[in-house]
Amino acid sequence: MIAKRLEKGDTIGLVSPAGPENPEKIKESIKIFESLGFKIKKGKHIYDKLGYLAGTDNDRAEDLMNMFLDKDIDMILCVRGGYGSMRILPLIDFDIIKKNPKIFAGFSDITTLLNCIVQKCQLTTFHSPMCNSNFYDEPTIKSFLDTLMLGYKPFIIKNPKRIATIGIDKTHAIGQLVGGNLSLICSTLGTPFEIDTNDKILFIEEVGEQPYKIDRMLTQLLLSEKLQKCAGIILGQFTNCRLPHYERSLTLQEVIEDRILSLGIPVLTNIQSGHSYPKLTLPIGARVKINCKKRVIEVLEAVVE
Amino acid sequence: MIAKRLEKGDTIGLVSPAGPENPEKIKESIKIFESLGFKIKKGKHIYDKLGYLAGTDNDRAEDLMNMFLDKDIDMILCVRGGYGSMRILPLIDFDIIKKNPKIFAGFSDITTLLNCIVQKCQLTTFHSPMCNSNFYDEPTIKSFLDTLMLGYKPFIIKNPKRIATIGIDKTHAIGQLVGGNLSLICSTLGTPFEIDTNDKILFIEEVGEQPYKIDRMLTQLLLSEKLQKCAGIILGQFTNCRLPHYERSLTLQEVIEDRILSLGIPVLTNIQSGHSYPKLTLPIGARVKINCKKRVIEVLEAVVE
Repeated sequence: MIAKRLEKGDTIGLVSPAGPENPEKIKESIKIFESLGFKIKKGKHIYDKLGYLAGTDNDRAEDLMNMFLDKDIDMILCVRGGYGSMRILPLIDFDIIKKNPKIFAGFSDITTLLNCIVQKCQLTTFHSPMCNSNFYDEPTIKSFLDTLMLGYKPFIIKNPKRIATIGIDKTHAIGQLVGGNLSLICSTLGTPFEIDTNDKILFIEEVGEQPYKIDRMLTQLLLSEKLQKCAGIILGQFTNCRLPHYERSLTLQEVIEDRILSLGIPVLTNIQSGHSYPKLTLPIGARVKINCKKRVIEVLEAVVE
Repeated sequence: MIAKRLEKGDTIGLVSPAGPENPEKIKESIKIFESLGFKIKKGKHIYDKLGYLAGTDNDRAEDLMNMFLDKDIDMILCVRGGYGSMRILPLIDFDIIKKNPKIFAGFSDITTLLNCIVQKCQLTTFHSPMCNSNFYDEPTIKSFLDTLMLGYKPFIIKNPKRIATIGIDKTHAIGQLVGGNLSLICSTLGTPFEIDTNDKILFIEEVGEQPYKIDRMLTQLLLSEKLQKCAGIILGQFTNCRLPHYERSLTLQEVIEDRILSLGIPVLTNIQSGHSYPKLTLPIGARVKINCKKRVIEVLEAVVE
């Protein structure tokens, strides 16, 4: 299932299912969206703060559900990740989402919501910049708007020219795109919200984790046979995951070679999506082809209608 | 199943299933064990180093299996945790361990081995200090030796007098003791090596993780129903898990209240086992009673014979 495409004049609903954001930053991003020709409706609790959470679990979940129910809202955008999406999973009524499909976008901690909505509602979602992202970055905003406004026909995702992608294994793989932040993918393993990677194209990005922790997470995905069962893998940005001194560590590259590239399945690496810039928007749940020869992601179907 | 008790003159086999340790530190600990009246046999690869691993997966697994097979070895002690035990899980022959039961001890990253051996071999293991621990700490060495040498009859585990335990809910719970490091417990969820907590007493300790990460891990255990199904919970040391500034965080105490104490099951907190000192030795797999009124752990059966 796909949502209605985003159009100028549409109303974007802002929600904070995870951590709180500085009110000034939220207001700044609202101005940007308004200058781009969109209306904004704020969730009741987007300015709430309860430690590292943007308010109580009930309030954050209620804001999210209300945005799906609100007929005036054309698209739902998350304000920030951080931490907290997992806590509201049991409070989400996936039937309501299924009956009121609309664009839902975010990344990082939002990974669990993106994938649960895909799996439980069969609705394509979007791994995209949020209110706390830098929307002044030109390739970032172009990818975001092109995907949501023009993604009603197949298209190609590729890095901006100055950043090369690497294709491992000169072939290709086709499957449904799933994934996002590695820590969050691992944090739902063993739960009813666990990611399904069977015959899928798994996208992985990470921020601020040392190589040994990335090894540990990839090893968990190997022991649970999540990696072996993928049709293909896309590696995004691994921001601040390198160590200044490697005498006590394997390098990030060595970890990726050992745990992923050794599997012999098609892999695209260095895709510019994750916690750095440019930040490409990716349609989670869409059928895609990773073309290792051309080093691009071919989106094989419409992601909005 | 329980192993033969440790006696003066016995031979302790040293293995490094996870990360490498400074050779000087290993040699220093060997002197301590020799001065205590034990012989030492070193695994072939305990001085190996491959980044954050103590040698290749095959070599580390082989060392471990050889120690179980070696008739001269009375007890197996891990040199250090760090990271790496998970990587060798598929290389371990649990049948060999089952047929050659002996004391196996360690903690931190070794958590996965302690619990897998309990679950797959029904052999009681020991959450204990390792070669890289401070064996000069008197209550630490006393707990270690008392448990392994005198644990052939029921005994009581309690904090040294100067450190108070806290018992939540004035009652008690009985069950098999499982658990160890929280990160490692979560890192096997969704795999064939996942911890079983049904009707068990779950012990948890952690080091160097911020409150929001502890929240995330406990939330994963809640979503997988691992916490709700416990008979009781023991909280050990949470070393360096507090933040200097709490304006952006819930406190560790708030996280524990919200995610654990709210369950209403018996909990003992502040048990001195984990990454600080004193470091009490705990028999993983043994039937224990947490007595919340007396604030002690009663070990109800022999842990060695």
